[in-house]
Amino acid sequence: MKKRSMLPQPVRDFLAASRDRHLAELFELLSIPSVANVADGSCMRAAQWLLRRLEGLGLSARIVTGEGQPNVVAHLHVGDDRPALLIYGHYDVQPPEPLEAWQSPPFQPQVRDGVLYARGASDDKGQLYAHLMAIEAWQRAGGGVPVNLKMLIEGEEETGSPHLEGFFAKHAEELAADAAVISDSEFFTDGLPAITYSLRGLAYVEVTVRGPAQDVHSGTHGGAVRNPLNVLAGLVAALHDDRGRVTIPGFYDRVLEPSQQERAEWAKLPFDEAAYAASLGLEALTGGEQGWAALERRWARPTLDCNGMIGGYTGPGAKTIIPASARAKLSMRLVSRQNPREIVANLDVFLHRLCPPGVTVEVQLLSQADPVLLATDSPATHAARESLLEAFGHPPAMIRCGASVPVTELVQRLLGLDAVLMGFGLPSDNLHGPNEHLRLEQLWGGSLAAAAFMHNLAARLR
Amino acid sequence: MKKRSMLPQPVRDFLAASRDRHLAELFELLSIPSVANVADGSCMRAAQWLLRRLEGLGLSARIVTGEGQPNVVAHLHVGDDRPALLIYGHYDVQPPEPLEAWQSPPFQPQVRDGVLYARGASDDKGQLYAHLMAIEAWQRAGGGVPVNLKMLIEGEEETGSPHLEGFFAKHAEELAADAAVISDSEFFTDGLPAITYSLRGLAYVEVTVRGPAQDVHSGTHGGAVRNPLNVLAGLVAALHDDRGRVTIPGFYDRVLEPSQQERAEWAKLPFDEAAYAASLGLEALTGGEQGWAALERRWARPTLDCNGMIGGYTGPGAKTIIPASARAKLSMRLVSRQNPREIVANLDVFLHRLCPPGVTVEVQLLSQADPVLLATDSPATHAARESLLEAFGHPPAMIRCGASVPVTELVQRLLGLDAVLMGFGLPSDNLHGPNEHLRLEQLWGGSLAAAAFMHNLAARLR
Repeated sequence: MKKRSMLPQPVRDFLAASRDRHLAELFELLSIPSVANVADGSCMRAAQWLLRRLEGLGLSARIVTGEGQPNVVAHLHVGDDRPALLIYGHYDVQPPEPLEAWQSPPFQPQVRDGVLYARGASDDKGQLYAHLMAIEAWQRAGGGVPVNLKMLIEGEEETGSPHLEGFFAKHAEELAADAAVISDSEFFTDGLPAITYSLRGLAYVEVTVRGPAQDVHSGTHGGAVRNPLNVLAGLVAALHDDRGRVTIPGFYDRVLEPSQQERAEWAKLPFDEAAYAASLGLEALTGGEQGWAALERRWARPTLDCNGMIGGYTGPGAKTIIPASARAKLSMRLVSRQNPREIVANLDVFLHRLCPPGVTVEVQLLSQADPVLLATDSPATHAARESLLEAFGHPPAMIRCGASVPVTELVQRLLGLDAVLMGFGLPSDNLHGPNEHLRLEQLWGGSLAAAAFMHNLAARLR
Repeated sequence: MKKRSMLPQPVRDFLAASRDRHLAELFELLSIPSVANVADGSCMRAAQWLLRRLEGLGLSARIVTGEGQPNVVAHLHVGDDRPALLIYGHYDVQPPEPLEAWQSPPFQPQVRDGVLYARGASDDKGQLYAHLMAIEAWQRAGGGVPVNLKMLIEGEEETGSPHLEGFFAKHAEELAADAAVISDSEFFTDGLPAITYSLRGLAYVEVTVRGPAQDVHSGTHGGAVRNPLNVLAGLVAALHDDRGRVTIPGFYDRVLEPSQQERAEWAKLPFDEAAYAASLGLEALTGGEQGWAALERRWARPTLDCNGMIGGYTGPGAKTIIPASARAKLSMRLVSRQNPREIVANLDVFLHRLCPPGVTVEVQLLSQADPVLLATDSPATHAARESLLEAFGHPPAMIRCGASVPVTELVQRLLGLDAVLMGFGLPSDNLHGPNEHLRLEQLWGGSLAAAAFMHNLAARLR
């Protein structure tokens, strides 16, 4: 292992002195309601904001439009003797609903008690912004960025990056790099940084059951007309057995169990199940398959969750109808060698087989991502370890994550590169829910880690 | 059987000559969006419209406010030697959603090809209005109404008449009558009038399952957190077995099967199952319990339908959350001696027993009505037979109905009176769904039948 050198003091000083301005700038980005699902031009506004900011940092940047929301691509060549680093982030955010559950409006950022509240504060605008701060610090106070930079800032991560594979196929040469870093993950727990070396994959579908041509009276017709909503509930229910296992044929065929060594290491992590449950407002963690520890169920076992369901009358009071149709959004988190395409095909056949006569069922794929397992001994991983230690004062844990970041698998498969997942969020940031937030200390530490990472990577790959 | 005398020609002529004006007046009533669930003052406006109209017909009328939406009560005493007839109707209507499915806006009545389209056209403003036309015809052209009138026009029928029992208890003496007629039902089929002698009861609940304190990321937490939406789907699914029977303990204990004679008579009715299915946009009638004919399943067997369900993200595209909660509206149609209070209590216990740890379930009663079986040989029934024959040219079939009209059972239990259900709608009117309508011929025929009924009842009870 090479000797580690510290981040130059002027870079540190610059970051420390720029906090107010940096926070004001991040507020601008967080104020743009760039939900990928919503076609109101907000995503383009966020992309344009990033374009201007990257150009201001001396990068050559452009917006690439095509299918779906625009991507931002930027470059900075500092020397042929320097390694090339690809930095990935995403500017799109989850839909903010339910709005009434937010203490301050999701797109009006607010700092309360040293915590920044906004949709995207942690996922992923804040974490992405840490890299922009780091680039600026190197450019203005450190004698220039110590690596050749390539940046890809995506606009559809939260909808499963449906167009990113095509984008990578088209721009593989341009995006080729010696290392890649993704900051869209989190610490293991408060005070314990982490490098995430495995992500679950995703298969996300919408299931629609259709019955009568329109809503009909449930008194007059009830007992004769099969009810699409009852059928859909039955289909969703049939996807688990009474031990919490998913019943789709072949679902577990390609699942690799974690090694005994991995399980033993996870068991040593400071995971307080009761505290974790309490942080979610729960008495106990009762989801998932029986026979596996909670961390194992979150990291190494596949799941199937209903993310949304609607049908019939949902307003106040009673309305006595059999609805014409009902819809459910279902997502499966996949592990090791499960293949989302195969699993969706099996689900489709299974639901058609289960669907009773008198109604029809349709399965529509909304997004998919392959699970990914990353190398843990690459130069980039070592550089990330050093950087997190320097920035946060504690060496990182090596962990898995139950979520998906589709770009990770694409970088691996299409660029031949194992990215390092160096995240600055905390598990309590409430990603995807109301009152998403990022502690400012994590943001400032993230900018130090991002700056140190360029430095440490340059040293390791020079 | 007493000799039947025809409706006086001046009454017929008056009705024939007044159609344009009557239609314009009914348009006014149909334009008021008097959905009982919606607290926008529309129900009071409908009540006030009826009050003015009834006063204009010479009745003494008043609006009775209290819990829930107002009721309209009216009286006309024509002579101590005349029988008293209670006419019931309701001015509230079902919610109009889904609005996009309507060809013309639900509260902008429109006549197309001799059919009146509007929410409430058939259920129940149009049918109620037939009685107002009849009263007017007797008053202006027939020498006065031939019976003493009592009218009760309710504003919460579509939400299950939650306050009507209390109203009856308070006003039993005032509402006491020799006969009662309710026009909130329909023909057996086009051209075949019907008298409905049995209605199913209703137990309508909302079931809420609650999990984490707020929506959480289904990748990060999936497999650890039990998903309220999956649980709710499982609970709804568990309420039927694979032969379509309801699984709530004791559900069938008090169900009386129809007699062999009844079943034989129903089998003779011109019920074309394929045409009925096609009219609903279905290939076949596959709902309900196996082993019973479609008419039997609609009329004489209890059911459980999910009328609405919502949870999680229901907008476009994907959002990967485990929702904090999920809700379902469930209604059970009850027959013969099933008791809605007992059944809701059993459902509550059953769902709590089925609910797994890690989430909670709550059952809230929204409305209930006892099933009712009416006498078929009363003077009022005979008068209704004669009146339907005179108005529509065909003697009525004696049928049951799968729906509930809560007032019917209250009139029976609290006034000691079996009402006669003489309806003017058609099964194809699409009650409760979009594009509800009433054929104008049914409306005009209804006004003739209503006028003849007063006449025939007076003759039979004098």
